[in-house]
Amino acid sequence: MQYPNGKKSSAKHYRPSVSQTIYSNRGMTLEEEINDTNHYYLAQQMAIIHKKPTPVQIVHVDYPKRSAAVIKEAYFKQASTTDYNGIYKGKHVDFEAKETKNKQSFPLSNIHMHQIDHMKQIVEHGGICFLLIRFTLYQETYLLPAEHLITHWEQQFTGGRKSIRYETVKKQGYIVPVRYQAKVDYLAAIDQYYMENGGRHHGR
Amino acid sequence: MQYPNGKKSSAKHYRPSVSQTIYSNRGMTLEEEINDTNHYYLAQQMAIIHKKPTPVQIVHVDYPKRSAAVIKEAYFKQASTTDYNGIYKGKHVDFEAKETKNKQSFPLSNIHMHQIDHMKQIVEHGGICFLLIRFTLYQETYLLPAEHLITHWEQQFTGGRKSIRYETVKKQGYIVPVRYQAKVDYLAAIDQYYMENGGRHHGR
Ligand SMILES: [Mg+2]
Ligand SMILES: [Mg+2]
Repeated sequence: MQYPNGKKSSAKHYRPSVSQTIYSNRGMTLEEEINDTNHYYLAQQMAIIHKKPTPVQIVHVDYPKRSAAVIKEAYFKQASTTDYNGIYKGKHVDFEAKETKNKQSFPLSNIHMHQIDHMKQIVEHGGICFLLIRFTLYQETYLLPAEHLITHWEQQFTGGRKSIRYETVKKQGYIVPVRYQAKVDYLAAIDQYYMENGGRHHGR
Repeated sequence: MQYPNGKKSSAKHYRPSVSQTIYSNRGMTLEEEINDTNHYYLAQQMAIIHKKPTPVQIVHVDYPKRSAAVIKEAYFKQASTTDYNGIYKGKHVDFEAKETKNKQSFPLSNIHMHQIDHMKQIVEHGGICFLLIRFTLYQETYLLPAEHLITHWEQQFTGGRKSIRYETVKKQGYIVPVRYQAKVDYLAAIDQYYMENGGRHHGR
């Protein structure tokens, strides 16, 4: 069933499960929670972070009289950058967000080469760059600094793992607190990251 | 006529005109020139600036077997932010670009209230924020600092003009040089703006 806002009904997909009690916001995706958090940050003047629109290749548009243009044929394009960026404490912030149902690890196939290239550039230019990884089964979200992600990503081509182990994410990343109005309070994780690195945002 | 890349043929719209010789890049829009310039900046590792995808409200998608998903119904949404952002010399950069065929002034109706609100926020958070205005008849492009744009935009509701005079843009703005590989070399204009303001990017 398609709804006018382009979302599918999630109600009919709902299946009770043994682990349901650990879901504090069942039905809300990581993306939706980040968007809510960004609205809160904006309203509180804490940071200005927006999700970039989904890139779409538009092929055919109808222009009916007296009503809005209708896109009749279009295709999803692969993103060449990350999904979120903006400004926090005067600094450029750039990140991607992914969730996985895996228990043991985060598969690197979730990240495209273009995105890694983009992240490298952001790091070189002094931006705050990271990946938010949610392990949905644990309902835990981590901020993994781009430097670590890039290292893991490159090692997969020289005999390394095709995924990052959950334990490694825990060790190299920063837990993102869940707050009432900031469900994915990643600014708190950025602050911690900075504090531990004395203002520099390089890997620890 | 529609081409697969979504662009219309510009050839058949071409009309020779008396003023044609002043067009150095006839047929190239400001947006195309900025995109080219951004590619150049990226390749030269000077700055990382991308255009945000056009925001589209997707209503219906077909998922044919063995081929890519096709968006069958979608609508253009009004942008709530500016079109371009990224990082330059470690600083967050955020801007909008507009061209006008007017000789005397730039109509403020080209800018939406949401965009002004966004620009105010970026300025408050210490970002480099501006409007690139091209007067196509003169083939001149100016960087107008957001602070000036915001002032003009607000004054229109208290008896002020509904447009910014060309002479005012010339006075308050910074000319954007045309270079072979950076057709809209706005980083040069940012540098000049900064230099004149001793590192602060407030109105002069
Ligand atoms: Mg993405
Ligand atoms: Mg625009």
